[in-house]
Amino acid sequence: MTISMYEASVPVFSARLKALSTILAAAEKNAAERKIDPQVLVTARLTPDMYALARQVQIATDHAKGAPSRLAGRDVPKYEDNEATFAELQARIEKTLSYLATFKAADIDGSDDKTIQLKLGGHDMSLSGLRYLLDVAMPNFYFHVTTAYDILRHNGVPLGKAMFLGAR
Amino acid sequence: MTISMYEASVPVFSARLKALSTILAAAEKNAAERKIDPQVLVTARLTPDMYALARQVQIATDHAKGAPSRLAGRDVPKYEDNEATFAELQARIEKTLSYLATFKAADIDGSDDKTIQLKLGGHDMSLSGLRYLLDVAMPNFYFHVTTAYDILRHNGVPLGKAMFLGAR
Repeated sequence: MTISMYEASVPVFSARLKALSTILAAAEKNAAERKIDPQVLVTARLTPDMYALARQVQIATDHAKGAPSRLAGRDVPKYEDNEATFAELQARIEKTLSYLATFKAADIDGSDDKTIQLKLGGHDMSLSGLRYLLDVAMPNFYFHVTTAYDILRHNGVPLGKAMFLGAR
Repeated sequence: MTISMYEASVPVFSARLKALSTILAAAEKNAAERKIDPQVLVTARLTPDMYALARQVQIATDHAKGAPSRLAGRDVPKYEDNEATFAELQARIEKTLSYLATFKAADIDGSDDKTIQLKLGGHDMSLSGLRYLLDVAMPNFYFHVTTAYDILRHNGVPLGKAMFLGAR
């Protein structure tokens, strides 16, 4: 198998979102074991001006649905961004995984030089599909998945990096 | 420009390491401003059984030097792993950036199907260059760069995600 825009995007997002789902399930179970209200974890953050766990999961899935859509020239599906429980976050991940499964390699391969226009953090950006995937979507995606993990570890949830790396 | 094993590795590692360097410089400056011993930040961690900042930077650079080396069939340069100050961590990043600059696209392109054998976390692994890059090296690399950022944010260092995304 050779690298391609599809290989470098859809399976990567899917593998990491499955790992995130496993991590959230472990956190919910741990909250029950420690008799902690699960909402304490869902709303936990590393510092007051960083996003809480739920928002980290929302943004990670935003990039996972946004990047393949833009590369394939589809409209990005809109989510309501109202998830407030572990069950709702899991449903959002599941919905994103199902959406990712609708992409075939041919939908995305060849988008390397395609001009991608998007608004991110209030800025209008125009860049190639390759630069968008490698410099914008992927670092943002990994940032939010890792920060979700870090929030939970900081709050005493027993997770290991093997869980983050996950299986494909 | 089209995606390739080189494009998906060397420039990605370099861009993120430059961002990490900027982040560490901001942290050192902030420690001085707050009259905090910089070693407090260098040895900070999110929870007792996670690595401290210095080790996060070491492991991030391990993946950044290891992945291109293995894909190109070079020996991985050995570092002494004894960095204990911001200056030493910056030197390690600088050394890794210089090493990354020695790779040409032709050294790495075509390694998609090459068999990569490595020991990671005590396990012997054998997998294709593509799977190694996308499923092992890149998630590990992003995990440790993001966790370095998260440790500093948790300790009150004013950083923004734009700094993490950096410029190329």
